[in-house]
Amino acid sequence: MRATYMFGAGDVRVIDAPDPVIQHSTDAVVRVVRGCVCGSDLHPYHNMSATPQGSSMGHEFVGIVEDVGSDVRTVRKGDFVIAPFAWSDGTCDFCREGLQTSCRHGGFWNSGDVRGGQAEAVRVPLADGTLVAVPVEENSPLIPSLLTLSDVYGTGYHAAAKARVTTGTTVTVIGDGAVGLLAVLSAKQLGAQQVILMGRHKDRTDLGREFGATDVVSERGAEGVAAVRELTRGDGTHVVIEAVGHLPAYEQAIGVVRPGGTISRVGVPQYESAPVGFGSLFGPNITLTGGPAPVRAYIDILLPAVLAGSVEPGKVFDREIALAAVLDGYRAMDNREALKVLVRP
Amino acid sequence: MRATYMFGAGDVRVIDAPDPVIQHSTDAVVRVVRGCVCGSDLHPYHNMSATPQGSSMGHEFVGIVEDVGSDVRTVRKGDFVIAPFAWSDGTCDFCREGLQTSCRHGGFWNSGDVRGGQAEAVRVPLADGTLVAVPVEENSPLIPSLLTLSDVYGTGYHAAAKARVTTGTTVTVIGDGAVGLLAVLSAKQLGAQQVILMGRHKDRTDLGREFGATDVVSERGAEGVAAVRELTRGDGTHVVIEAVGHLPAYEQAIGVVRPGGTISRVGVPQYESAPVGFGSLFGPNITLTGGPAPVRAYIDILLPAVLAGSVEPGKVFDREIALAAVLDGYRAMDNREALKVLVRP
Repeated sequence: MRATYMFGAGDVRVIDAPDPVIQHSTDAVVRVVRGCVCGSDLHPYHNMSATPQGSSMGHEFVGIVEDVGSDVRTVRKGDFVIAPFAWSDGTCDFCREGLQTSCRHGGFWNSGDVRGGQAEAVRVPLADGTLVAVPVEENSPLIPSLLTLSDVYGTGYHAAAKARVTTGTTVTVIGDGAVGLLAVLSAKQLGAQQVILMGRHKDRTDLGREFGATDVVSERGAEGVAAVRELTRGDGTHVVIEAVGHLPAYEQAIGVVRPGGTISRVGVPQYESAPVGFGSLFGPNITLTGGPAPVRAYIDILLPAVLAGSVEPGKVFDREIALAAVLDGYRAMDNREALKVLVRP
Repeated sequence: MRATYMFGAGDVRVIDAPDPVIQHSTDAVVRVVRGCVCGSDLHPYHNMSATPQGSSMGHEFVGIVEDVGSDVRTVRKGDFVIAPFAWSDGTCDFCREGLQTSCRHGGFWNSGDVRGGQAEAVRVPLADGTLVAVPVEENSPLIPSLLTLSDVYGTGYHAAAKARVTTGTTVTVIGDGAVGLLAVLSAKQLGAQQVILMGRHKDRTDLGREFGATDVVSERGAEGVAAVRELTRGDGTHVVIEAVGHLPAYEQAIGVVRPGGTISRVGVPQYESAPVGFGSLFGPNITLTGGPAPVRAYIDILLPAVLAGSVEPGKVFDREIALAAVLDGYRAMDNREALKVLVRP
């Protein structure tokens, strides 16, 4: 089969790879209907050291089950399934608590001998815990929205849920990428009263307004902080969702959070140390939360409205490319020509 | 009157200071019955730059109201009162939300023209919002316990409450000072199932056991982390309360917190930057919370059991000295000869 591998910064190739096969009785093999490129794929696209063996790519996909191991019970050949960006057993204590990203037996695509979703097919470990079967056809117009449940919608929702957004909460979302925009949608769904979107790309912030943003702030840094404070009687918002992952976005979050409030991070941090002392988090009793979203837990919550068509998170996809052209997808997202790119094997 | 001033590291003196008087119609003047020395007073005792004018000291006291301004309604001359370590109006939105440490019109003792509680008397701004009258005599045996409501008990409770300790929660408390021990008591009151106290002073950890600690770990650093993990099936605890304020304690907290768990800090951080990235907080979805406790809010919750005698947080006081000997109190706490020192004007 054909599959996407990265061999170093900027070096993305579609190569011939072995067809995935059942290795364990709990595996499934899924033929990919749609994969996509994630904002977090751009980090290695910028920074990855050159490596001759390369790394398989893609952690978001929906597809059709082609084969299952003898112990798989909840999905069968022919099912349309959503694959969360982490695989998990669904039975350990962390999974039962809804923290499937810390599953005792789970893991992430593209590590060990598990390959990625920017490919024609994928072996899925622990298929019963991982995959969610959905009653749609593979040509359904809902597919882009269903694919967001693989990562970006669940990640945006995690940001809002971990920050305990509820009726009346005021929220700032930093970042107008797909996760930021779907954090806007999620905050609105959870009852946020005011949602200030900080972003500089008008087509994206327009979609953010459609998803429920009440205000848009295009300035960054100190000017951006001042603009948010002006919109909030000088106080900042109860919740700040940081959907970027770079240190300046973290610092901006500290600048716009209200005393007693919460900063919720879902942008993968590209830094290890950051301010947390009296002058930043401690003095005003700010809570810092977030992490990799256990999207498997959120599929159950978010799927009904997607199937009903009452939300359309799939609007974050503004381009579709063939698998063979996946490098163009990376380039388009890196150049901000595309918000999020669907990949069609 | 006589009052404690610090003029630099190690330089604590009791000097003659002007008697406090009503300056605003919302003020009260309180004659101090008991003050005390706080673990956080040891930070300037170690680090303060020499200054000729000095800084008044003490932020915990109980006393008798001697005078009130014309607008004061909730306390009157002769009342026995508890003074929280922050003064606050009790009416702004932050106070109504229970975050009196961020009161729009409040502040802290020993800043501006407000003096401290290691003295014979104190002018209390915004007396209606700040002071809590309690029906006891000034020679009541409850006074040490009532004095803990000024800071250390409310601070320990804040740590547990911000971390949402509830029935069945497992908790590690780092630090066997007064705040750490009262965090043990608070966690137990909120329903914690297991409370592991990390501390090296047997007399203190014995009191911790009396307050509800189920386990004591005396090792620090990597050994301490390993010991806590051994007590928790390798996982760490849902909640870690950091009641020290130094970076190694923060790093220890990261080492013993369970994935998806919460680190709650109430030791005033003696650092500004610390690890928060993928390898520390983000990857395992750890929440970081805490800050200066709005103890005014907690007095209402904690006072009834203190008055009933069903808890005795005042057991953290193991020494009482006269105001004139306050420097001996600093020394005894600094040398770990005393856990917490009562000051009797």
